[in-house]
Amino acid sequence: MRSIGDVGEQGLIERIARPERGQHRGAVVLGIGDDAAVLRPRKGEDVVVSSDAAVEGVHFRFETATPRNIGRRALVANLSDLAAMGARPFGFTLALAAPPSLPLAAFDGLFAGMRHEAGLHACPLVGGNLTRARETSLVITVIGGVARGRALRRDGLRAGDRLFVTGDLGKSALAVARAERGDAPHRYVATPRLAAGRALARMNGVGGCIDLSDGFASDLGHCLRASGCGADITTSAVPLPRGYRSACRRLGVDPLRLALTGGEDYELLFSLRASVHRRTTAGALSSRLATPVTEVGSVSATRGLRGLPFSARSPAQAGWRHF
Amino acid sequence: MRSIGDVGEQGLIERIARPERGQHRGAVVLGIGDDAAVLRPRKGEDVVVSSDAAVEGVHFRFETATPRNIGRRALVANLSDLAAMGARPFGFTLALAAPPSLPLAAFDGLFAGMRHEAGLHACPLVGGNLTRARETSLVITVIGGVARGRALRRDGLRAGDRLFVTGDLGKSALAVARAERGDAPHRYVATPRLAAGRALARMNGVGGCIDLSDGFASDLGHCLRASGCGADITTSAVPLPRGYRSACRRLGVDPLRLALTGGEDYELLFSLRASVHRRTTAGALSSRLATPVTEVGSVSATRGLRGLPFSARSPAQAGWRHF
Repeated sequence: MRSIGDVGEQGLIERIARPERGQHRGAVVLGIGDDAAVLRPRKGEDVVVSSDAAVEGVHFRFETATPRNIGRRALVANLSDLAAMGARPFGFTLALAAPPSLPLAAFDGLFAGMRHEAGLHACPLVGGNLTRARETSLVITVIGGVARGRALRRDGLRAGDRLFVTGDLGKSALAVARAERGDAPHRYVATPRLAAGRALARMNGVGGCIDLSDGFASDLGHCLRASGCGADITTSAVPLPRGYRSACRRLGVDPLRLALTGGEDYELLFSLRASVHRRTTAGALSSRLATPVTEVGSVSATRGLRGLPFSARSPAQAGWRHF
Repeated sequence: MRSIGDVGEQGLIERIARPERGQHRGAVVLGIGDDAAVLRPRKGEDVVVSSDAAVEGVHFRFETATPRNIGRRALVANLSDLAAMGARPFGFTLALAAPPSLPLAAFDGLFAGMRHEAGLHACPLVGGNLTRARETSLVITVIGGVARGRALRRDGLRAGDRLFVTGDLGKSALAVARAERGDAPHRYVATPRLAAGRALARMNGVGGCIDLSDGFASDLGHCLRASGCGADITTSAVPLPRGYRSACRRLGVDPLRLALTGGEDYELLFSLRASVHRRTTAGALSSRLATPVTEVGSVSATRGLRGLPFSARSPAQAGWRHF
């Protein structure tokens, strides 16, 4: 089996940097191959940038997911950060570190996965870096643009705001739970809510917004701390996928706990000012964002997170930590 | 000795994200703490972005350099890419991966080094990511701006161009050679030529430009391949630091070979169109770029790199490779 060490750096770069026929250049003035990429914002656009790492043994394992799935999820995690800011993608850079023994098929699979998501969301690879290391890791930086002053923020929640989420929660955590059991390889890839984020950035009366990467309880906690507020959640309203409860029961896991603490949903959690949106229905929002939207609670001046069927105090329950 | 695992992720983030008093915000609209940073280009500015990795055991070793020196050099490598494009810095993101056993003092040293360079060049940390990993690595992404359409490129060399370098070559390679011998720890940190790059981006009649990160022979080779040209180098003109020849002799290394193949000089190598700059002297350029400038050769239509005192064919001689 050929490894990336057999191909050499130049050969690997050539595999990555192949120009794609008919590729829409979008914001890209100068892509891969120079000291840096050059991107052109639209007139009056602010630039949005976010970096995230996916490390073997921490964020993914080649034993439980295909390289293609790992590559897709790595880019989705980053695109979701742009969605949470209400931004459109310009492009991304990648720093890939890997041992020379990494099979060439795994390398190609990682790139095929990233290229697939890049194509879906018009976010081309514009630069990066290959390095030898003891374990495989992908550090992705996405760059995008949002109309000046319209970026969505996680510190924008205020007492009285109505709280909403897009889509439903728990699919990713269920896929992980299944893969860890060896029932099925991890095939699920969430969709970054870019269109919904951009629609929210254009709307008036939006409070705060965050994407659900660590888990609903944990990410809502980030927003509440940043905003100095609390929240009351209506657990019965939390949107769960079809067939999800029975699938959880077969695995012996608590469906609601998994949905509220599981990561990688990449749905948007956002608030609307009740003064502006007293009569806005979830149905009307769904149309406007072209995405299912559910109301899940409200923001309160009293700090703390209420209504969850467990204590969200412990970090182990409310998301996850690396150190 | 306390390690980063003892402090925990939240504690580490607090150590990093301390707001700095009186810090100039520059292009930063929203810094650390949200899903992404928001940066504001000037009217008509293109955005320049570059990612680079520094991996323990590949790019640095804690045995031969202080954490502060490693942190400084990691950011300088990235700032130099902005310099090579003629861009001004907006800010940088950092993905730091490290084992929980990394001493807290090393963590603080890496950040102190980055903060030092960030302050010198008005390039604040705007976001990033901490991850557990088996070895320490820093992936830095710098974002900057350059007047629309004025970015310097490495594929801009044309036959007849005059070739110049800023500063002098070999200091970094000498510091590495000394540290590897155990003579002295690696203390030297090169200066990214940001002001010179910006002055070049404003000038007319500039051909191509690259920063010398891998080594003169290797980086000139990149430019020549990208531009489809060759070059004739006047080796005797290559600018060497004071006392450098004798220091090399004491170490038993060939001064010219070290200067032409050693990495991390971070000087700019650039070309000027002879038609526009027939009479421009290196002295006049030095004033204009506020940096010493030396003419080192010329670009030719005949491919290949001539005039070096060794064959630049072998990758092992002309720079370095990771795989």
